Amino acid sequence: MTASRSVLAAQATDFPRWFQDVIAKAELAENGPVRGTMVVRPYGYGIWELLQEAMNRRIKSTGAANAYFPLLIPESYLQREAEHVEGFSPELAVVTHAGGKQLEEPLVIRPTSETVVGEYMAKWIQSYRDLPLLLNQWSNVVRWELRPRLFLRTTEFLWQEGHTAHATAEDARAFATRILSDVYRDVMVNLLAIPVVAGRKTRRERFAGAINTMTLEAMTGDGKALQMGTSHELGQNFARAFDIGYLSNEGRRELAWTTSWGSTTRMVGGVIMVHGDDAGLRVPPSVAPVQVVVLAIKDETIAAARSIADDLTAAGVRVTLDDRADQPFGRRAVNWELKGVPIRIEVGPRDLAAGTATVVRRLRGSTKSAVGLAELTNTVVEAIDADQQHLLAEATDRQNARITTVSTIDEAVEVTASGWARLPYDTVGEEGEDRLAESGVTVRCLQRQDGSLPIEDNEPDLIAYVARSY
Amino acid sequence: MTASRSVLAAQATDFPRWFQDVIAKAELAENGPVRGTMVVRPYGYGIWELLQEAMNRRIKSTGAANAYFPLLIPESYLQREAEHVEGFSPELAVVTHAGGKQLEEPLVIRPTSETVVGEYMAKWIQSYRDLPLLLNQWSNVVRWELRPRLFLRTTEFLWQEGHTAHATAEDARAFATRILSDVYRDVMVNLLAIPVVAGRKTRRERFAGAINTMTLEAMTGDGKALQMGTSHELGQNFARAFDIGYLSNEGRRELAWTTSWGSTTRMVGGVIMVHGDDAGLRVPPSVAPVQVVVLAIKDETIAAARSIADDLTAAGVRVTLDDRADQPFGRRAVNWELKGVPIRIEVGPRDLAAGTATVVRRLRGSTKSAVGLAELTNTVVEAIDADQQHLLAEATDRQNARITTVSTIDEAVEVTASGWARLPYDTVGEEGEDRLAESGVTVRCLQRQDGSLPIEDNEPDLIAYVARSY
Repeated sequence: MTASRSVLAAQATDFPRWFQDVIAKAELAENGPVRGTMVVRPYGYGIWELLQEAMNRRIKSTGAANAYFPLLIPESYLQREAEHVEGFSPELAVVTHAGGKQLEEPLVIRPTSETVVGEYMAKWIQSYRDLPLLLNQWSNVVRWELRPRLFLRTTEFLWQEGHTAHATAEDARAFATRILSDVYRDVMVNLLAIPVVAGRKTRRERFAGAINTMTLEAMTGDGKALQMGTSHELGQNFARAFDIGYLSNEGRRELAWTTSWGSTTRMVGGVIMVHGDDAGLRVPPSVAPVQVVVLAIKDETIAAARSIADDLTAAGVRVTLDDRADQPFGRRAVNWELKGVPIRIEVGPRDLAAGTATVVRRLRGSTKSAVGLAELTNTVVEAIDADQQHLLAEATDRQNARITTVSTIDEAVEVTASGWARLPYDTVGEEGEDRLAESGVTVRCLQRQDGSLPIEDNEPDLIAYVARSY
Repeated sequence: MTASRSVLAAQATDFPRWFQDVIAKAELAENGPVRGTMVVRPYGYGIWELLQEAMNRRIKSTGAANAYFPLLIPESYLQREAEHVEGFSPELAVVTHAGGKQLEEPLVIRPTSETVVGEYMAKWIQSYRDLPLLLNQWSNVVRWELRPRLFLRTTEFLWQEGHTAHATAEDARAFATRILSDVYRDVMVNLLAIPVVAGRKTRRERFAGAINTMTLEAMTGDGKALQMGTSHELGQNFARAFDIGYLSNEGRRELAWTTSWGSTTRMVGGVIMVHGDDAGLRVPPSVAPVQVVVLAIKDETIAAARSIADDLTAAGVRVTLDDRADQPFGRRAVNWELKGVPIRIEVGPRDLAAGTATVVRRLRGSTKSAVGLAELTNTVVEAIDADQQHLLAEATDRQNARITTVSTIDEAVEVTASGWARLPYDTVGEEGEDRLAESGVTVRCLQRQDGSLPIEDNEPDLIAYVARSY
């Protein structure tokens, strides 16, 4: 794949540059007219749509229902929860004029919707019978970013944000944990083929207004960490600020316990950063807008290529026929590699004469094999499934190989030049986090020894995962 | 349904008030914190999701692909197309501060995306091979409304906006017409059971920046018109403003021809206004989040009710089990009528003793019949289909009965007190539109004598549909 190397920076040389190059060349997205904003092109949006559909189905299976809350929030709403406004103030975009007039109260474009959702939860919840209230919203949010990066940190991004209210702290915790483990983790591992480490954020990395933030962290191709989704216990902070109360079974008025959880277009960035290689993108078949491209090498093989594509479509595969036989074959092949289409079927005159087609598996080092036309559909359907598994196994092995157990902060910093460090949180602590921060390193999350999620901040013997991050 | 009459204004007395009442009582939506904005509650959003899914599928079948363009647009972009900025300026919401600072250039929240899409089309289109470029976007837009009304005219609304570029005027017109007739009309008639009149807008009612706006108009329960979706030929206006050009087959540089087309959450308002009655909402089965509610009258019938619900779910029906046997049966029944669930199955001890359940068909005047348990699933599945057709037939008859052919403007104004007028456009003209406007009446659209869409503004012998509108 020397041809494609010429259009992309090499990963080993400059990974962030490679990321930017592949987004442009694979036509995933580009910068919007306003700094930090993003135009998501059809190929990138196609990945997002498949991901979104799978995520939406899983969210609904928890009993949560979709709703829609307004984009514009009165500034005063945000101020009701002290930590929340402090955390988000520097990132707000503010509407001061509308309909040709100056507004009496400035409006902020939602950076997240806890406040406005809280206001309505308070109206809708009367008694314990109304609990749990499980809501989800697919929308755009705006957070003014100082160091924007396409897909990973954009001034506007697309996401789902869930908001729930429960009768007890235990119910709230159980639900927030269920979203992390059963919904987010399932999508990331089984759809995106991205292994993730689940853990609790330290106090300094917590969501503004939460009593607990749980996270899923993925390892990028250059050994950094990428936060892929978070789920928050909000305690009674927002219930208190917005008066979300209910009449208990015993007739007492109680405050509810709320949660929120979000996952964003950043997940598409994760797909690029975890699976991509020097030849370009590698898209997991489950979220690939094009799972198979059938490439007619010559004019006289277009009919056969079309028939192969039709058979695969009938078998439920997402297929594109490339019948541009008037354009150089090599350039077309390289372009499909760049776009990370999992399987390419090349149909040339010599193939057809031999009763075969050439199957090229992008997720297996672009290995080629001649497959008899009669077995082609079955072979490809099986390969799609196998290669989805292979991609996950490969990413898991790579992640495991690059997590090093250490015992001091200095060692941790050293290790994070090319991977993650794992060390006792007792040897880090809040002061240790300051020291790590000086080297641009953060505690990504905390786990118990057995890998489970801590329930308290101060549990003894926790393990810290430490890394540089995007 | 006397009980529900007490919670809703009567349609005949105050239709707009009835509309507001039914939205609140059926828990479809409520006002947002900022004037004119809307919170769409799960039941209302459920209708939108089903509608959106159907619309999205049909849009994709035309070859259009989804993409996403930024919410925030530099003010200067809008100014590039003179009519466009003039039309939208009074409705803009403007961001002047972000990230804690005043911005150098104010940003507008998109009221529609022709300008930003135009900027990128210009980059993406090089040669005739890149045409047509067919894009669609699902998003929110903001237009500051002076007289907001839930679902119909909200400051922020959800919609899809399609944007396409073509090599010739004919291609552009054909595509804009195809969207109107094959996509929008199909969804409205066959999903929403709403008959629509398709026509061309007069010059004064045209989209700001278009050379032709085509519309679908529905008749509300009080005989007014509701614009349900529009498709615009933009000529070369935006192509010129944003330099959307291409190299033709003959190697000449040409300007492209563009279109745009949109349909919004207003369609949910259409469902309410076209089908609702004094007992509440009536939701067409195709977009009903709950097609059938199975209501257990007593504790001892819950098990049987659940089993009926399970059978229907297995048959692909969207079912809800109402097992709140501790709450008054009458109130629950009235509530489901209010929510417009097409079919209610009442399961009481006497029904079960007789081996039957009571099927109540909301879309057929809430007629009741006892159905043997063995035939229940089949009967209900057939009723769902039949009642979808019935609803359309009923709305079509009502619409036809309330369109009166007249010959003068005075007669037209008189007729529009309770319906639509149909008269020769030659007797209206631009001056006639001014006279109609004085009485709050507008030309909704123009058709040829045979009902087809005019291609030119000045075609002779056009028919004008004239009405009051929401």
